[in-house]
Formats: sequence, structure tokens, C-alpha cells
Amino acid sequence: MGENRALKRLYAIDKEIVLLSHILGVLSWDQEVLPPAAIEERGAQMGLLERRIHSLETSDEMGELLAALESVELDEIDGALVREAKRTFLREKKLSGEFVQLFSETTTRAYSAWVNARREDNFAEFVPVLESIVALLKEKSAALGHTGEPYDPLLDIYEPAMRTVEVEQLFAQMKQDLLFILDSLDTQPIEDTFLYGKFPREGQEFFIKEVLSSMGFDWDRGLLGTANHPATTSLGSDDIRITTRYEELSVASPLFSAIHEGGHALYEMACSSGRIKGTRLANGASLAFHESQSRLWENMVGRSSDFWDYFYPRFKELFPLQLANVDKKAFVAAINKVEPSPIRVDADEVTYGLHIILRFELEKALLGGSLEVKDLSEAWNTKMEELLHIKIKSNRSGVLQDIHWSMGAFGYFPTYALGNLYAAQIFAKMRGELDIPALLRGGDFVPIREWLQAKILNHGMVYTPKELIQRVSDSPLKSTYYRDYLTKKYLER
Amino acid sequence: MGENRALKRLYAIDKEIVLLSHILGVLSWDQEVLPPAAIEERGAQMGLLERRIHSLETSDEMGELLAALESVELDEIDGALVREAKRTFLREKKLSGEFVQLFSETTTRAYSAWVNARREDNFAEFVPVLESIVALLKEKSAALGHTGEPYDPLLDIYEPAMRTVEVEQLFAQMKQDLLFILDSLDTQPIEDTFLYGKFPREGQEFFIKEVLSSMGFDWDRGLLGTANHPATTSLGSDDIRITTRYEELSVASPLFSAIHEGGHALYEMACSSGRIKGTRLANGASLAFHESQSRLWENMVGRSSDFWDYFYPRFKELFPLQLANVDKKAFVAAINKVEPSPIRVDADEVTYGLHIILRFELEKALLGGSLEVKDLSEAWNTKMEELLHIKIKSNRSGVLQDIHWSMGAFGYFPTYALGNLYAAQIFAKMRGELDIPALLRGGDFVPIREWLQAKILNHGMVYTPKELIQRVSDSPLKSTYYRDYLTKKYLER
Repeated sequence: MGENRALKRLYAIDKEIVLLSHILGVLSWDQEVLPPAAIEERGAQMGLLERRIHSLETSDEMGELLAALESVELDEIDGALVREAKRTFLREKKLSGEFVQLFSETTTRAYSAWVNARREDNFAEFVPVLESIVALLKEKSAALGHTGEPYDPLLDIYEPAMRTVEVEQLFAQMKQDLLFILDSLDTQPIEDTFLYGKFPREGQEFFIKEVLSSMGFDWDRGLLGTANHPATTSLGSDDIRITTRYEELSVASPLFSAIHEGGHALYEMACSSGRIKGTRLANGASLAFHESQSRLWENMVGRSSDFWDYFYPRFKELFPLQLANVDKKAFVAAINKVEPSPIRVDADEVTYGLHIILRFELEKALLGGSLEVKDLSEAWNTKMEELLHIKIKSNRSGVLQDIHWSMGAFGYFPTYALGNLYAAQIFAKMRGELDIPALLRGGDFVPIREWLQAKILNHGMVYTPKELIQRVSDSPLKSTYYRDYLTKKYLER
Repeated sequence: MGENRALKRLYAIDKEIVLLSHILGVLSWDQEVLPPAAIEERGAQMGLLERRIHSLETSDEMGELLAALESVELDEIDGALVREAKRTFLREKKLSGEFVQLFSETTTRAYSAWVNARREDNFAEFVPVLESIVALLKEKSAALGHTGEPYDPLLDIYEPAMRTVEVEQLFAQMKQDLLFILDSLDTQPIEDTFLYGKFPREGQEFFIKEVLSSMGFDWDRGLLGTANHPATTSLGSDDIRITTRYEELSVASPLFSAIHEGGHALYEMACSSGRIKGTRLANGASLAFHESQSRLWENMVGRSSDFWDYFYPRFKELFPLQLANVDKKAFVAAINKVEPSPIRVDADEVTYGLHIILRFELEKALLGGSLEVKDLSEAWNTKMEELLHIKIKSNRSGVLQDIHWSMGAFGYFPTYALGNLYAAQIFAKMRGELDIPALLRGGDFVPIREWLQAKILNHGMVYTPKELIQRVSDSPLKSTYYRDYLTKKYLER
């Protein structure tokens, strides 16, 4: 086969894979309203599409195309597509269709079990299916192959080429930094009860849409919905949907969830452009890179004092009674309050990383066999006390709080904390090139978005995460930028 | 291949087809909220799944399986599956993958064009794409093959084995009956302005849900949503969703739309049971049979005086001010008011059939070549004046009112009126076996639903429409039952 024809055919197969992934996005988006009796069949629908994707990714034809393109000189984009197709081919080829289906069916079951167990605060109900999942993950790790560290091949799925030992080193330093900052914080209590008054949903939604519009969210190519678990879902190249969860009694959480998801959405929208639109390269360079964007917008932009210089007067106009005696400074202090809490998604910037370290260590222990599922709740609670001095009173706000393990997604959690590290490193570089405080105070996000687009978002997966962070910041990923960012924000204020 | 293995494999392929159809249902359900820029790609997603279904339906393997099962003695259900798979195989085999894709892409474009043309009341904008559709339909009819009547193979898709000439005969008699009844109606005006007061949505939704629950709508296996065009969609064997459209200023339309779709939903829910659940046989015997159920519940049950004996006190409790001076008799008269109007979906039981005859005749003329698309609006308006003495003032309430032609669905409209005929014939039989008035007055729909389930719904597509109507009513389809039903209701009251 000629290399041109091979490349064209590779793009055609890739297009089908992407269409199917987007259809999976629709099925997943729709789960929010799924009638109870339909859950199992929805699993079968998703399993069918996943199997089809798996078979396209690992077909003999794919093998032949990749072989034909092996030693061909390609430009950056074509080369990246071949690299990513090959990476998936080599990985997925090691997993049988039966395994993929069993994994999919088990996680569908696990999701319902997790929902029930969580609702009833009954960890025992989740144990058997989580045991199946851990067994499948061990099998998966062995099938994918590793040199000693069974966590490596799982982590690699989400953060390509990142090794467990690298995460351990980054996290060891980060843990020390976070505990130091936590210990050094001013102990004077911060007033934040006004965030929990009665904020009508209409006003919240209006404000959120204004912020998202300023960020550059394209309403022709996406929408804002509501869900129990805020998320960003791509249902098409031009169909990027985010959700938040309104709580009449808390105004901060829905807003920052929306800004967070807005950061993800900007990535999805920007990488679906140019030649890579509609290909598998129209995606974040990695999960952690994706998270860097949501964190950057949520925390470094959205929780900054400069941001509220511009937005607080508008915000106060919407909620004049609720914020009658609250000035900007008090508001900004409240939304940046640091306080250990049992729930990861509610955690502040300082304690968040510790929640992740806990999960990372438990996942490694489960996978390595030094911890059994039945002892997981106890191990969780012990570690939580150790790291954050918190006594977990119910599994619902402990080991059952997150959806990820029900999805069989070991190796996923670390990317959240790595996202913070990436964000700080990127933000440090950006601050050297743009006058961020002035832009934020003027409510002008265009240069910020354009900088991120040019440096990161538009490239999708063309560069590997390691290449990309080097290109953006002239340095490999380090934990020092995040330490410096937190130190400046929390200890030098 | 052994016949057992062949049958097992046929069921496996069939299961995949059904899963894919349900996934199409999800994509279609989601279109209600699709961001504008995503429309084209959604078309590509649906096209991909349709192509996959087409290729499963027409594969060489399918041909071999059907050949292997050709002369095998099978029970009723297995035999019906083979019959339906063969019917589809023979039909779809005549259409190339390219044609199917072109058809799908054209109708996706046509949908947007229709939406725009309708919004802007500009028929000219819809003409070019409708011309493409008519050309494709001519090609489709020729490819499917017919003996003189190009409408036959299109009609056969929706109403198996029904010939155009049969519809012409039924409709000729029906037209005469409807015009006679219309002419004979009491000319005293019926007061119905109270239906257009201010009815808060919450109360409407509460009442609708009570009626749907009484009908036996299973809330574990479905839900009620809202949409611009009320419909029933199956997103899974246990995921049957209906929509209605609330209008604060009209209480009748949302209610009867919901009861109508509820009738469809009961069919979908009941046929997804037993051995045929999850197979292609879990479907209405035909579109007209499906419509018979929605019409029976909407009109023969929901608009009956007996029904409101039970429900009017509850209804009045919800809207005491709006209905202060309206007694049950006046209310029932209002919801059964007969009055020619330009809009099909708002038409009463007497004039509805005339709207269908108009469309049936125009479709035949377009397909036969005696009418061109560019002259369609004029032809519509002329016929509307002829049949209903209505002057169409805008295409929006004329030729642009329905979605069906943008979907390329010629042959579909007749099934609506055939549905009325089936409904009356079924209802006449049921009245001979159950004391319908007493049941309705007691609000007890269980025996009615169970009768319909046992006689019709549970069988799905096991029997052909012609077999089924014969089994249910000991007679082929006739137009006389509907005439008798209308005569009794409207001329003998």
C-alpha cells in the first residue's frame, strides 16, 4: 500500500473511532436522567460501542497501516496521529475483546452498587464488586506489562510516559510543601458564613454565564447543564457540554465548579480546530494537562483578588442583600479559606493534594496486594487522620465519596494533583509574558485565553505531555512552582 | 451450519441491531438540546450507526443465515424473526451503502432547512433540499421495485403488505364519511374559551402524571419530558420516554398530547417483554397499529364523557378558578369541539383524516411526477380549500407545518389515519367484551390495558398487521367502524 493511501485510511478509521467516542459521550451525558430499569441495558449499549472502538483500534488492518507508515517521514501532525494510534494499538492489542467487555460490564454494575452503597452509607455493599474490579485491574496491569511497578501501565493510560516513581518523587516534595504551608497558616479564623445564605438559582446562573462568556465559552458549540457530579463531556467536535450543581444555600461551589469545567471546555473547544479537528488528537495532551486548565481558571484566575476587582461589583448587584456587609476583601478571603475537610471536591488549594496522595497510596497498595478491599475503609480513615487530622464518621464522606473506583479508573486520581503542578508551572510562565493582574482587573480574559490556546490548547495531543511542558515552560514538570504559588498566596498575604 | 447455530447467530446479530437502534434513539432524544454548531456532526454520528445497522442487516452472513433457515420448521416467534429479518434483508439489499448515507445526510440537512424555512415562513428556502429528497425517494422506490405504483414500496416500509390501492379505497370511503359527518353536525357554536385561560404548568404536569400512572405507564422504565414536538422514543427496552409541550395558555393540548404518547409508550413497554424483549420483534406490528393505541387512549378513552366522570372532579380541584363556571358536560363538549383548522396536530377526530388525505394525495403526485416541489405550496393551499374550506395564509401553517417530509418519510402520513381506523375497529371489539363505560367511570384502566396487552401489545411484530387485525377483530381492516364510532359520538349525542 502506498504511504499516502495508508495515511488516508488511518485518518478514515480514526474518524470513525472519534465519532463512536462522541456517541459514547452522548450516552454518558444522558445517564443523568436514565430511568432506573434502563441502567443495565445502557451498560450493554456502551459496551457494544467500546467493543467496536476496541476492534477498530486493534484490527489487523490497523497493524498493517501502522507497519506501512513505520519508517515514513511524516509532518508533526501526521506523525503524532501515527504515534497515538500505535500507542493505543500496542496497549489494546494486549487486552482481549472478552476482557474489555467484562471490564465494561463489571464497571456498569459497580456504578449502581456504588450509588446504592453511598446512599445507604454501606461500604460492605460495594466490597464484592470492587474486589472484582481490583482483580480485573491486576489482570489488566499484568497483560499490559510492566517492569516491577504494577501501577505503571495504569498510570500510563491517563498520563502517557509518566512513571510511578516520578509521581512518588513529585508527591513526596508536594506533601512536605503542603504540610508546611498548612502548619504555617495564620490561625485567625476566616468568616465565610455569608457564602451559605439564600442565593436564588436564577442569579447564580446569570452570573456563571457571564463569567463563562468572558472566558470565551462558545455557546454555539456547547451548553451549561446541571448534574449531581459536575463534569465536561464532549458529545461532538462542536458539542462540548459542562454541568454544575446548584445549591441554593451555597454560592461558591456552583460557581467554581462551573469555572473549573469551563477551563476543561475551553481546552476541548480549542483543540477541536484546524487539521486535528475530528481526530483523536483533538484532546488534551493528557488528563493532567486537561486538569491544569480547569485548575488554572478555577483557582489562579477565579479565586484571585484581581478577578474579583472586576467581578465583585457585578456579583454584589445580583445579591445585594446577601452580601450587604461583605466587602471584596472579605469575600476573597472567604472563597480562599483553607480548612481540612473530609471531601476531596470541596477541598481548598492547600489540602487538595493531600486527598490525592491518600488515594494514590491506597491504589498502589490494593494493586500491589498489601491491602485488601475489605480493609479499605479502615485504611482510608487511618490515613485521613494521619494526613489531615480528620476523623471520618461515615463512609459516605470517606471511602465512598468518589465515583472513580467504580469506573475501574486506578491511576486517574494522581492526574488531579499533577494538574495543579502543571497549572502553577504554566501560570508562572504566563505571568512572565502577560500583565495578568492588569488583565484580570479589567475583566479582559482574551489575551490569557489566546496565550493558552497558542501555547497549549490548539496543539491537542500533537506533543506528548513531556514535550509540551518543556515547550511551554523550558522545564520538565516540577513541584516547586506550585509551592511558590501557594506560598505567595497564603503565607505572604 | 446447523439450524440451531444459525438461529442463535441470527438472534445475536439482531441484538446488536436493536442495541444500535436504541443508541440512535438516544441521539435523537438528545437533539432537543443540541448546540447549533453540532447539528452537522450529529448527522454524521447517526449516519455512522445507520450504516452499521444497514451492513448488519444486509451482510453476506445474514444472507447465509436466512438461507440456512429457509425451509426449517420454526415456532411462531422464531419464524417471525426470520420473516422480519428477511423482509429487511431483501429490501435493504436493494439500497447501496452510499445511497443510505446520502439519504441520511440529505435528511439531516433538510431538517435544519425545514426548521429555518418554517421559522422564517419561507417555503422557497426548503424547496431545493426537498427536491433532492423527492429525487432520492423516486430512486429508492425504483430500487425497491414495484408493479406500477411507485408509492407501494415506500408505504410498505411503514405498513407491511399494505398496497396503495387499498389505502385509496379505505380513504375514499373515509373521506365520504368524514365530509358527511362534518356537514351534518349541529351548527350551534360550542364554548371552549375557558380551555385557554392561565393554567400553571405544575398543576398540568401533576394531572398528566396521574392520568399516565392510571394508564399503567411504568415510571421505572420511562420518563415524561418536554419537547417542541411531542413524541415517544425508545432509548432501550426499559427506557421508553415520552414528551409533551406545555402551554400555559392551553390546558387541553399538553394533556392530550401526553395521553397520546402514553398510548404509544404502553405499546413499547408491553412488547418489550417475554421472549421478544430486546429483539426487533419488540415493536409495534406496524406504524398504523402503533398509532391505533395512541388514538384509542387519546380519543376513545381520554376524550370520552365517561373518562371525565372520574377525572373531572380531580381536574377541577387543581384549577378551581379557571373552571369555576364550567361543568363536566361543558368541558367534555369543549374538548370534542369539531372545527376545521389549518394545523393537522390540532385537528379534531372528524377533520383529522382529511388532513391526511391531502398529504397522501400530494405525496403520490410528487412521486409520480404530476406535481413539482416548486408548485407544492400552491397545491397544498388549493386542496386545503377544497377539503376543509380553509384559506391558508402562511406556509408555516400550511405546507411547512410538518417535519415528515424533511425526514424523507413519504408513506408515513397515511398510517396516522389508518391508525384511527384500526383504533375504532379494536375499540368496537373491546366494547363487546368489557364494560368500558363502567370501567372508565370508575377510573379503572387495568382491564382495558390488560385486554390490549393480551390481544395486541405483547405480541409485538410476531403477527403481521393483516394477521393481527384479523385475530383481534375477526375481520380485515374496514373504514366502517370509525364511521360508526364518529356517528354515535357526534351525530347521536
